[in-house]
Amino acid sequence: MDAAEFRRRGKEMVDYVADYLENIEKRPVYPDLEPGYLRSLIPNEAPLEPESYEDIIKDVERVIMPGVTHWHSPYFFAYFPAASSYPAMVADMLCGAIGCIGFSWAASPACTELETVMLDWLGKMLQLPECFIAGTHGRGGGVIQGTASEATLISLLAARCKAVRRVQTINAKKSESEILSKLVAYTSDQAHSSVERAALIGAVMMRKVPTDNRYAVRREMLKKMVEEDKAAGLIPFYFCATLGTTPSCAFDHLTELGPLCNEENMWMHIDAAYAGSAFICPEFRPLLNGVEFADSFNFNPHKWLLVNFDYMTAAIHWQIPLGRRFRSLKMWFVFRMYGLKGLQAHIRKQVALAKEFESLVRADKRFEICAEVVLGLVCFRLKGSNELNQELLKRITKSREIHLVPCQLSGRFVLRFAICARTTESHHIQQAWQHITQLTFELLQEASH
Amino acid sequence: MDAAEFRRRGKEMVDYVADYLENIEKRPVYPDLEPGYLRSLIPNEAPLEPESYEDIIKDVERVIMPGVTHWHSPYFFAYFPAASSYPAMVADMLCGAIGCIGFSWAASPACTELETVMLDWLGKMLQLPECFIAGTHGRGGGVIQGTASEATLISLLAARCKAVRRVQTINAKKSESEILSKLVAYTSDQAHSSVERAALIGAVMMRKVPTDNRYAVRREMLKKMVEEDKAAGLIPFYFCATLGTTPSCAFDHLTELGPLCNEENMWMHIDAAYAGSAFICPEFRPLLNGVEFADSFNFNPHKWLLVNFDYMTAAIHWQIPLGRRFRSLKMWFVFRMYGLKGLQAHIRKQVALAKEFESLVRADKRFEICAEVVLGLVCFRLKGSNELNQELLKRITKSREIHLVPCQLSGRFVLRFAICARTTESHHIQQAWQHITQLTFELLQEASH
Repeated sequence: MDAAEFRRRGKEMVDYVADYLENIEKRPVYPDLEPGYLRSLIPNEAPLEPESYEDIIKDVERVIMPGVTHWHSPYFFAYFPAASSYPAMVADMLCGAIGCIGFSWAASPACTELETVMLDWLGKMLQLPECFIAGTHGRGGGVIQGTASEATLISLLAARCKAVRRVQTINAKKSESEILSKLVAYTSDQAHSSVERAALIGAVMMRKVPTDNRYAVRREMLKKMVEEDKAAGLIPFYFCATLGTTPSCAFDHLTELGPLCNEENMWMHIDAAYAGSAFICPEFRPLLNGVEFADSFNFNPHKWLLVNFDYMTAAIHWQIPLGRRFRSLKMWFVFRMYGLKGLQAHIRKQVALAKEFESLVRADKRFEICAEVVLGLVCFRLKGSNELNQELLKRITKSREIHLVPCQLSGRFVLRFAICARTTESHHIQQAWQHITQLTFELLQEASH
Repeated sequence: MDAAEFRRRGKEMVDYVADYLENIEKRPVYPDLEPGYLRSLIPNEAPLEPESYEDIIKDVERVIMPGVTHWHSPYFFAYFPAASSYPAMVADMLCGAIGCIGFSWAASPACTELETVMLDWLGKMLQLPECFIAGTHGRGGGVIQGTASEATLISLLAARCKAVRRVQTINAKKSESEILSKLVAYTSDQAHSSVERAALIGAVMMRKVPTDNRYAVRREMLKKMVEEDKAAGLIPFYFCATLGTTPSCAFDHLTELGPLCNEENMWMHIDAAYAGSAFICPEFRPLLNGVEFADSFNFNPHKWLLVNFDYMTAAIHWQIPLGRRFRSLKMWFVFRMYGLKGLQAHIRKQVALAKEFESLVRADKRFEICAEVVLGLVCFRLKGSNELNQELLKRITKSREIHLVPCQLSGRFVLRFAICARTTESHHIQQAWQHITQLTFELLQEASH
């Protein structure tokens, strides 16, 4: 494929992409096939001779599309959103063409510098404290990490390093491995599995802090564990707070926990992977109060800030060698094409859709809401057994009209309804609820026989 | 930007990208500006209201392009190649539109399954042993990692876990932290800094093994260190071999080292980030002999296999949760549009260009070649002081006609000339050499005054 063919094929692909997204809701949102379906559809080895582009593009509908879970369908309500927007897609084409590897300033100055400034834009949108902003003096500042998991890992490693140094300042005779064996990290029992994995990788202990009846960590619970561990000769050094947990979008109490961490010389990291984007709206910003006590903070613009394709995580207040692709280009295009007001409107619209769904659930006495609806996630279930709810979800999944995933809350099997696609509108919510109640009706009728 | 505008702007961007790449050699390959140049060119904050696309696209030439190091210019000879090809760019557009997050099979079955099969295609292209292939039974198999650094880290963590279990099987009373404090990993003194960093993250000791006069690790050198460490009560558990080191593209002697690692119960990982792609050519495959002793293997198709944009690393024989984007789509498009023969032709052409440059250097008595030219990298220098060579490189960089980076080999300052861009041809090599000799002439004339 030379430049001339790329001009032709690239433009065809632009139309294919636009067609795909304009008609996505006609496709079943979830695939209907068995694991291993793909291997038999394509050869076992790469071809020796080049194939034609026509053959390849035909295979997209034959091989790929039947196996795609359509994350950008307005009927996709599973997991959390994966952001997508047209400006981000255009920017990504440019990013690919430049194709630089920004591992140092000289390797592509624009790549390094735009990233620093875009992370400052982000930090200001979130009204982060001054110390999180690089500015021109740059003691703080953010970088784009590959994933939220990486951001959490890096914060834990930084905290580990700092803790070892601190202990050795007091007692120079202690070996690093002796100190490591005493370090304890903490996080919520609702935290994402990547937090626990960070501790495994970093070879330090991690304790799960029990949460209150709203699935949040409170000061007293953490304090009790820290005291016990100190009494046992251990060294508490790190707490990872979650703002917007994966199961129920719960918020740890930063304003209580932050001062405790500061008193105890513990690094406080904030993982706000999903919820972080919402803090650009003044009405949601109070959920971030207490960030001034934190040592580091990350969230995923690729979840809810319309910056698609890449795993973007803003890990602020801690610098490591920069991300590799020219990913900040996408932020630049998106922030400018939408403006802060446009981004806020997107967040508010999706929160309103979640509230609309919540109202529908609350109006139906067969159902209950299982956690406060703060942002775009509704946790609900049929009043009744876990088995009943499992069966309902099974039927929802099988029907392939909408797609949900479950979670466990206080031992109960709960359905998670997350507003995901940029194109989800009120009528999709209404239709989704009608579909759920229809399946519920059939299920309860069968159950009563 | 709605779908209609995306159709228009996307097609304009396809033309911009094609224009950029067709005319890239007219741009200075390296930017001429000072750190911090960008911040003053754009606002300090995101705009409140949306901006027009025209304004944004105008800023690409005003703000971004002056700060880009053009990795795909045929005059770019720095670092190692960052692959780029038109089919990969078209595939990336599709990947972005699907925009799925493949963290589990259900999250997008096609994403998981195509990746498994594409890594098998890759493994077969490299003629890896059967145990590295997933096939339909799947005890081996590969995944796409974010970077080679991650692949190395994961192999080290796997080895650490295996070593702890092994020691505890023999002596159940030993605590994990006690064992961790005794573990020792090894790698070449020529290895990439990411290997050392993996050990830092994993909180284990790492020793650098001295290399022979061809910058390769030999059996005896590693054996001696292992024996000494065992005598000191330590537990050797991991060796990271390098095939194609960053400074000089040297190759550790796998066929000697593999059996030693197996005898000593040490995990052998192979980092072939750059050189790995070349093993698809039968004439270079012998460099990989000994892989049958290895526990894991990684290389970067995004360096030399025309699969651009993303940081693809094939980490074979070790499975972790899958990569996130639908990155295998790009492999699929590229492997099929080029065919194995097309990919081999690309490797061979670039190796031939390196040999052509080597001949030019060898024919000029003022210069010397500093390491065997095996693939696409030529290490050379002016006979004379390090200062002289530093001055030459400084002038090359300042002229911005070609771009090189240096390395240190045996304490000497050496210039690295790597064949990088897909579009580099013989006349670019000739012109680059003419440029270097012209600068040399001026430099030596000044020095003689």
